[in-house]
This record gives sequence, structure tokens and C-alpha cells, in this order.
Amino acid sequence: MENPFLAPELRECIKKNDDKAIQAFCASLHPASVAGFLGALSVQEIWHVLTLLEPRMRAEIFGTLDQDIQVELAESLKRRELARIVTHMSADERVDLLKRLPEDKQETLMPVLAQAEREDIRRLFSYAEGTAGAVMTSDYAILSPDQSVQEALAKLRREAPDKETIYYSYVLDPDRRLIGFLSLKDLILSRPEKRIEDLMHRDLIYALVSDDQEDAARKIAKYDLIALPVVNGNNVLVGIITHDDAIDIINQENTEDMEKFMAIAGSHETGAYMRTSSWGHFKNRCIWLVVLSALGLVSGYIVQRFEGLLLQFAILATFMPMLADTGGNTGSQSATLVVRALAVREISPGDILRVLWKEFKVGLPMALLLAGLAFGRVVVFAGNSSKPEGYSLASIGLAVGVALGLQVLTSTLIGALLPLAAVKLNLDPAVVASPALTTIVDITGLFIYFTTASFLLGI
Amino acid sequence: MENPFLAPELRECIKKNDDKAIQAFCASLHPASVAGFLGALSVQEIWHVLTLLEPRMRAEIFGTLDQDIQVELAESLKRRELARIVTHMSADERVDLLKRLPEDKQETLMPVLAQAEREDIRRLFSYAEGTAGAVMTSDYAILSPDQSVQEALAKLRREAPDKETIYYSYVLDPDRRLIGFLSLKDLILSRPEKRIEDLMHRDLIYALVSDDQEDAARKIAKYDLIALPVVNGNNVLVGIITHDDAIDIINQENTEDMEKFMAIAGSHETGAYMRTSSWGHFKNRCIWLVVLSALGLVSGYIVQRFEGLLLQFAILATFMPMLADTGGNTGSQSATLVVRALAVREISPGDILRVLWKEFKVGLPMALLLAGLAFGRVVVFAGNSSKPEGYSLASIGLAVGVALGLQVLTSTLIGALLPLAAVKLNLDPAVVASPALTTIVDITGLFIYFTTASFLLGI
Repeated sequence: MENPFLAPELRECIKKNDDKAIQAFCASLHPASVAGFLGALSVQEIWHVLTLLEPRMRAEIFGTLDQDIQVELAESLKRRELARIVTHMSADERVDLLKRLPEDKQETLMPVLAQAEREDIRRLFSYAEGTAGAVMTSDYAILSPDQSVQEALAKLRREAPDKETIYYSYVLDPDRRLIGFLSLKDLILSRPEKRIEDLMHRDLIYALVSDDQEDAARKIAKYDLIALPVVNGNNVLVGIITHDDAIDIINQENTEDMEKFMAIAGSHETGAYMRTSSWGHFKNRCIWLVVLSALGLVSGYIVQRFEGLLLQFAILATFMPMLADTGGNTGSQSATLVVRALAVREISPGDILRVLWKEFKVGLPMALLLAGLAFGRVVVFAGNSSKPEGYSLASIGLAVGVALGLQVLTSTLIGALLPLAAVKLNLDPAVVASPALTTIVDITGLFIYFTTASFLLGI
Repeated sequence: MENPFLAPELRECIKKNDDKAIQAFCASLHPASVAGFLGALSVQEIWHVLTLLEPRMRAEIFGTLDQDIQVELAESLKRRELARIVTHMSADERVDLLKRLPEDKQETLMPVLAQAEREDIRRLFSYAEGTAGAVMTSDYAILSPDQSVQEALAKLRREAPDKETIYYSYVLDPDRRLIGFLSLKDLILSRPEKRIEDLMHRDLIYALVSDDQEDAARKIAKYDLIALPVVNGNNVLVGIITHDDAIDIINQENTEDMEKFMAIAGSHETGAYMRTSSWGHFKNRCIWLVVLSALGLVSGYIVQRFEGLLLQFAILATFMPMLADTGGNTGSQSATLVVRALAVREISPGDILRVLWKEFKVGLPMALLLAGLAFGRVVVFAGNSSKPEGYSLASIGLAVGVALGLQVLTSTLIGALLPLAAVKLNLDPAVVASPALTTIVDITGLFIYFTTASFLLGI
């Protein structure tokens, strides 16, 4: 059970060199909780605590520390010390760490590792970021079809400590091709002499190494799996992705979607707000702000072209912010829904016509409602604004209302269209960020506004 | 393995009344895959397929159908037929279904269920939506501390079919208080005569029934758990939440956050974009649009008050859209980062000063950069705009630049402040939706713009 009062106590124990107490403390808690407490200490203190633990627990706690702390620690350790930790880490955490170390550190480390580990690392390193191959682990349990249940259980017992999970075992043919799987529950519910071949499930859910990591994670979610096997093009089992990795992937993709959608660049790591430096935040946010503010030149140009109209009808300037905001809002709403529906794989780019038709049916009544409200507002509230003689408030209200209605309808459709178009072009739908969309519908909106006004007011 | 060509084949089998083929089809696939195929059929066809299956498989496939289809089916069934399915469903899926049925259907169903099930349903019904209690299941495996490993394994083998998972077992004292837990891995790695009490882990991670479901899900993610026990105030075990439910909860909360953040009302169900009617979408989106467009009256009022200034310096109107957009963008960016950091529990409302200081350090250089760009733009591009004699482009550029800088800095701070303030007021941080924020910083921005301009231009 978590206890926030333990952190200062832990520091006290380190000061007093009370190693027994530290060991007892670490043994009594979940490794993730210990890592949480250690996160508050200095790198030297963390290392002092870790040296007191037996290698497996040390590696496990190390693997759940914040990745930045892992890197900092790794860089401060001698290569033999680091090798001892890396050897005991799970295959996927190990590769995650190595990817973050500087290349020279990686190279000095490799020779001190056992050959099997070196090969495993090289293999996992070779898959592109964002694929199932890059997030899988190679510590999975395998069985052969001709084993008996009793033999299988004995094998799992022997191998359990080195496996990410023994709740799912994968059955391979002599060429290491995946032909079935069995859960530990299946095994303990079966008679000991039964053969694996007769028990195993052949309806396999799996991912290819080259599949998007998010697709793999969504399969784990859809089929309620504890682990998903990953195979290469020849159906040879090369790794598994576990349920806890699936949650991490989905969380990371969500952070990424939300940040991209708000035009924030960068690595989109979850839980890195405070850790990212101000300079890092500045860079991530500024890129798009500058691009968009350059695009703002276009809206400026439109306003400038219609300056004459504005000078004559200053009242039109009064409704410019409302028109721009409403367009941005409706566009962002439809874009959000489409981006999210694409993310959870509810719709695909092929549904483009169905989606547009749906958005049209939603956008039309919204356009009529908001147009009506805008008309009412002009008539009721804008009596004091300057307007030329001979134009009634109602005619100006009509112009503003019609323009707003057109703006709402087009923004809704543009908001739905752009993410779908992005996917067709093999881009992430969330690149059509809400701010970009706002700027785009600002331009279309101002154009609609002034042309409608000059047409309806007959100028 | 999934095969998109099977759906028409399945329909063919139903037409031909080839029951054997249908049974073989369903047995060969994962229940979630079968449910996927059935989703494309009519309710009558689905029911025809389900009747061919043995009760447990029928209930399992039924439980993975889309919730709307479940309700439609449930409403078309006789109460005895429905009772037979409900009896075999897992406790949490059962309650989810009942919550969606009309009350009279619930009431006719209850008497046909066994007493134990009725009580279980009543109990699970009693927890508020959104709490750990409302998403937990009561099908968990329990052990007592004085059992031997051998006895425990025998018990789990007997009970396995009725439990959501047997990979984690919970150890209770005679008063049903939770005192420890054991994994199936621990059990099969231990000598048969060992006592549970000596083996069980006492460092329990758990949730309270009244905890937020998202907090419970985040614990499962943080500690890589297969299931999380849920206890009441007396530490009595009342349910568990499993890893697959945690993914669903996190997904749902993400959809909710993103939609709320874009000012979309409604139930925020994941994967419901296409299923929601146009009228439903209209209602969900319109509420906020209308409120925000009413708020637009305020920006209109500000523009109106400065109409004189605008008529004199029409050039100022040219830069209004750019100023409004940039403020909205910077505000939405900081709000997004803060909302997300709050969602993943990286920061808490108590960090308000640290967050504002961080945003100040990010906002200041952004303000300076964008102000500089705006100044340059006025000087370079705005030569044709009408402006009164005696005012240099540089002086107008200075006014626009300073106003934009102030707008960027205040928007950044407002964007970070509002979600934190919402949490302090016990509101969801995502209620400070990006569109609402855009409208607010529009108002502050226009005010800053015109007062800066009239001050610097000396009017």
C-alpha cells in the first residue's frame, strides 16, 4: 500500500547507512512504487539503494524508473555495472534504454553482454519506430505441439522467471512458425497426459512486425488479450506485446493525437510536461504558431481588399470576430469527431462520402439556427453602429446571417474532410490541427462574409 | 485469424439452415471476431445463430456485441430466453446491459433470475456511474490464508469457468477483509504443501469502490496489473477490475477529454460517431456553439466601442483576424498540455504556481518572436492600407506588435490557468474547452489590441 510518508524516511535510512531497513523497504513494495519513491532522490542515492538489492529486483526497479533517470544513471555507471543491470532487464525495456543512450555508450556496452543478448538487442533495434516490432519483447514462452500438458507445465515452471508472462504460451512448429496458443488456465484445467496439439487454440489473433503499434494495441483491447504474438512475413514468431504495453501505447497515441491536434510539435511523450524544458516547449509550440501567423497574412489581405466596404459599413467589423470564432468552432468539432473515430478505427478513409453526408445533415440545421440567432442579434443589438443611410438593419442582419450560415456549413464539411484527406495521403489525421483548421476557415469565412455582404447589400 | 470474406459465407449458411457449418464457424473463432461478423446481420439472423450455440458461448458472444445491438436483441427476446443469456454473462457485462434496458424490462427480468444473481445485480447497480464500483465485476477468485497450494489449485480448477480471471487470487480473512494476493504463477512455482499465508503478497495495490474509475485504470497501467481489487470502506473485497476493462476506461476517458475539449456535449462514447444520429450530433454540438456565439456579443461590443478608431485606422481591422487566431492558438496549446498532464496525473492543482511560472517562461519568448514578426509584417505588407496622415507605418507596426505580444503572453497564461482553476472547483479540466478559451482570449485580445493602439497612437 502506498505511503507518501515513506520518502523522507527512505532518505533518512540512506543517510544513516541503514542498509537492512532499505532492503526491507524495497522488498515490501511493488517495484513501480519503489521506483516512484526513488524518483525523488539524487542519482547517487538511487544507485546506493539499487546496489543493496539482488540483481533481478535491481533491474526490475531500474526498468520502472522514469526513462530520463534511467539514462542519467546509465551514463554515470561503469560499463560492467551497467551490463549487469541490462542483462537482467526485460528485452523490451532494455532496448528502450539502449535507444536513448549515446552511441559511444551503446558500443562500449555491447561487448560486455552475452552473445544471445547482443543478438536479441540487434534484432529488436532493427524494427522501425512505431511498429509492432519496435515495442515487442522476446521473452515469451513457447511449447511444441508434441509435448504433454505435464511436460509443458514443467517447462513453464523452469522458465517462468525469465519470461514476460507465462499466462499465454505459443506453440511453434519445427521451423518456429506460429501454429497455436494455450493459456495457463487451459493447461491447469487439462489432464496431465493430454497433448498440446490436441488442446491448443488455432484461432490466432496476431500482429505482423511491420504493423502499426497502435493497431497491435487495439487488437489487444478488442480481444481482451494478456499478450499478442508478433510474427514476421513467414509466420515465424518473433515476439509478443503484453497488455501493459498496450495501455502504454494507447496512452501515448492519445497524448500524441491531442497535442498534434493543437498544433504542438515534438515527441509527444506522456507525462513529460514538467520535465520538458521551457526552451523545448518554446520550440514545439512556436513552429506552428509562426506558420499559422504567416497564413494570417491571407486573411489580412482579404480584409484589406474589402477595406472600402468596411469603412462604409463599420458595423460589419463588429461581427467579424463572431463569424471567425463560430467557423473555427464548428470546424474543430467535426474534425475532432472524425480524428477520434479514425483513431479508434471506427471509420476508414473509404467512408468519406458517408461522413460528409452525415456532417451535411448535422451542419445544415446548425447553420440555420446560428444564422437565425445572428440575424436577431444584428437587429436587436446593433442599432448604434454606424451604417450608411438607406440600408435597414434587417438587410444588414440578413447579410450577416446568410454569411454565418454558409460559414458554419462549409467549416463543418472542411473540418470533416481534411483529416480524411490526410489519411488518404498517408498522413496522420491529427496533422490537420485545430489551429490550422481555424486559420483556414478564417480565410474562407472572411471571403464568404465580404462577398455575401457586398452581394446582398448591392455594393 | 480474421477473414473479411467469411461474413457473406455466414449469411449463406443461415439462408441454407446449415446449422453444423454455423456452429463450426463460431467455434473456430474468437468470440469478439464472431461478434464482429454478427454485427453486420439483422437481429433475427443474430438470434438464429446464437440459439445454435451452447449457453456459455452464446452469452460470451452476446456480451461482445455492440451495446446497441445487445439492447435491441434483449428487447426482442422473451424474458426466459433473455434470462438464460443474462445468467451466463459476466457480472460486469450483465449490469452494463441491464442499465441500458427500459425499467419495465428490467423488472420483468429480475424475478426469473436466481437469487444470488439478483443480489449481485442490485449491489453492482448501487454504485455511482464513473466510480470503480460501477465498472468492477464480482466474478473473482478468492483463497483463505490457511489453505495449502495444492488445495488452492484444486479450488481454482473447479471455479475457473465462472471467474473473470484466475491469474490473480485474493486472500481474505474470515470477515472477507482483503489481506493478500497471489498470482497463478506464484502457485504453480510453489511446493504443493506450502501454505497460502506464507506465500501471499501483502503489498497490495487496490482501489476503493468510490474511487474515480480513471484513477483505478491508471493504477492498473502503472503497476502492470492483470486485475485490481476493489474494497469498501471496511477493507472488505467487493470486486475486481480487469486489465481489459482498464483499456476500455482509458479509451473512453480519452474520447471524453478530446470531445469535451472541443466543446462537444453528450455521452462521449468511444466508437459511436456513425451510430449517433444527426439529431444527436446536432444537439451535442449546438449547445456550446450557441453559448459561445452569445459570448461573441462581448467582442462585438468591444469592436463597436472602438469603431471611431477603426474608421480612422482601417489598417487595424486588417490585423484583427491574425491577433484573434494567434491568441486562440497559444491559449489552446497551453490548455491542452495542462489538461493532458492533469489527465495522466502528472500534475495536480497544487502545482498552479509552478505551471504558471513555466508557462511564463515559454510565453515570453513566443510573445517577443511573434510581436517581432507582426511588426515586420505591418511595415512590409501594409503599405497600401488607409491610414491618417502623420502616422508612420512603423508607429502602427509598433502598436500591432506590442498588442500581439501582450495577447500571446496573457493567452498562454489564461490557457494554463483555467483548467487548473476548474479542477480546484471540482470540475473536469476539459470543460475549459478550446473553443470557450478562444472566445475568452478573443475578448481579452480585442480589448488589449484597441487600448494598446489608442494609447501608443495617442488617440
